[in-house]
Amino acid sequence: VSLSLPAWFLENDRDQHFLAAVSGGADSVALLHLLHQADFRQITVCHLHHHLRGQEADGDADFVAALAASLGYRWEIGHADIPELMEKNQLSLETAARRARHSFFGECSVRHACPRILLAHHCDDQAETVLWNLIRGSRSESGIRTISRMEVEGFILEFLRPLLGVRRKEIRDFLMTAGLVWREDHSNSEPIAARNRLRHEVLPLLDEIARRETAPLLARAAESAEELREIEQWAVTQANVLDPQGRLHVTALKALPQSLQAACMMDFLKKADIPDLGRPLVLRCLELLHPDGPFVVNLPGGGHLRRRAGRVSISG
Amino acid sequence: VSLSLPAWFLENDRDQHFLAAVSGGADSVALLHLLHQADFRQITVCHLHHHLRGQEADGDADFVAALAASLGYRWEIGHADIPELMEKNQLSLETAARRARHSFFGECSVRHACPRILLAHHCDDQAETVLWNLIRGSRSESGIRTISRMEVEGFILEFLRPLLGVRRKEIRDFLMTAGLVWREDHSNSEPIAARNRLRHEVLPLLDEIARRETAPLLARAAESAEELREIEQWAVTQANVLDPQGRLHVTALKALPQSLQAACMMDFLKKADIPDLGRPLVLRCLELLHPDGPFVVNLPGGGHLRRRAGRVSISG
Repeated sequence: VSLSLPAWFLENDRDQHFLAAVSGGADSVALLHLLHQADFRQITVCHLHHHLRGQEADGDADFVAALAASLGYRWEIGHADIPELMEKNQLSLETAARRARHSFFGECSVRHACPRILLAHHCDDQAETVLWNLIRGSRSESGIRTISRMEVEGFILEFLRPLLGVRRKEIRDFLMTAGLVWREDHSNSEPIAARNRLRHEVLPLLDEIARRETAPLLARAAESAEELREIEQWAVTQANVLDPQGRLHVTALKALPQSLQAACMMDFLKKADIPDLGRPLVLRCLELLHPDGPFVVNLPGGGHLRRRAGRVSISG
Repeated sequence: VSLSLPAWFLENDRDQHFLAAVSGGADSVALLHLLHQADFRQITVCHLHHHLRGQEADGDADFVAALAASLGYRWEIGHADIPELMEKNQLSLETAARRARHSFFGECSVRHACPRILLAHHCDDQAETVLWNLIRGSRSESGIRTISRMEVEGFILEFLRPLLGVRRKEIRDFLMTAGLVWREDHSNSEPIAARNRLRHEVLPLLDEIARRETAPLLARAAESAEELREIEQWAVTQANVLDPQGRLHVTALKALPQSLQAACMMDFLKKADIPDLGRPLVLRCLELLHPDGPFVVNLPGGGHLRRRAGRVSISG
């Protein structure tokens, strides 16, 4: 069983420095071995101890440190008291764990002056996420991106997911065939009951109904949704509906198809940091364009969107 | 329980002529009553007898004719020998029935000089279709469109689906509360086992996992996918990568984001009626843009896509 990193990732210089997020579970352990096999030399292994499962979690941290050492990589073990974070900020386990991870990655990134963080998400995670976002009413089949960027405390982190095209089973097979060991994934602090049910009940049911493996199909749908969003962004820029003062030009906006009007309005509001943006708000704002529509729309956060002399802008 | 046609549809003139496809099942019967309640006067009820279920299907046709007459509407009962069509053209039941319906709608449309055909698809059909397309590997969450157009024998038919935002249950409740009768839906000739399983197994499971009704969420995802496709079409037109001779201009194409390059290439091939279009072919064709890429790509159907002097065009 052979498994390798994808071509786009292998184009990187072998001395390029990366942080690798390693929980000790099968996926991240496989990622680390693949990096080593491909001769990447500058890897810093980052493991966050969540302080959720006592000795078992201590074991995970020890395992990750030993694995990093055996491959000749540096490591960072971070600590987060998730129960305290949940209690203090009234957060769900999922949210608290995510925040703690991001803040840990941010620290590692600053300390090592390295914005590139490798994550071990794979194709089945992607399929699960597509379903998860669908049933939460996301705007479109959004999935996990191969490369995403995020600002954490003024620092731009770049997350790269080289295994996003690989099936969970391929990862397990690779590890088993190579005789590599990992820690069974109790370390996964996200996945709440709902996601587990999507994985263990819905995806197998879909496979059975379609009589084929549907995870790659869902992953491909996420990929094309991502492409459509890229095109949308290009279209918003190209549409060029702002006047030199940065106000929306009503005539220019009205010349566009409705879907693009909505995209431009969404982009405008987003750039103005309007909170709680959603489709209903965008549709209300677009009513300003109609001659017999309103002149003012109240925005969440206290501001107003106003039409005046053929321009739409935000006022306090 | 009140149910009404959506605002966009009610904007139509009450004397506008529509054909209404009525199987006799709950959905199309409800649509017909709603049209009548809203005072639409020029409705021609179209029912296709599939000759699949003997006397029961005869009963459907009689029921539909009687219903149309009771509402003061004209009707057309068409006949299609589906088993023969399947046998003769080696078609699946689904494909044969769809072709027969389209050809019947085409005939009715020509005979009545009316391109507008009302269909009774609802929100749950939409949700099912989104899942169905997802597990068949469709490009993106594509669903049923509120309005779609199709050419049948040189005639453009316009399909309108006024109930697409309504839940199946709302339709049943409306009929029952109003004491209206319908024929139980054995008349539905499409839905093969797989779609039924999506409806009866997958959707309820998703509802249970999400702890809310997911059909409207899936329908909304289809709606935003449709909007993204409209934006994509705008972007392709706006990108304007054709030279005056209708060839692809390499430099113009390369200046676009990759996702839009692919969309422009797909559009170019589609307009040239290249068969079996798909993402792999489009990606192969895009290799022509690279300085060290190939000069010619073979197209399905025997043609070739060629790069020459900074232009890409199709030759026989």
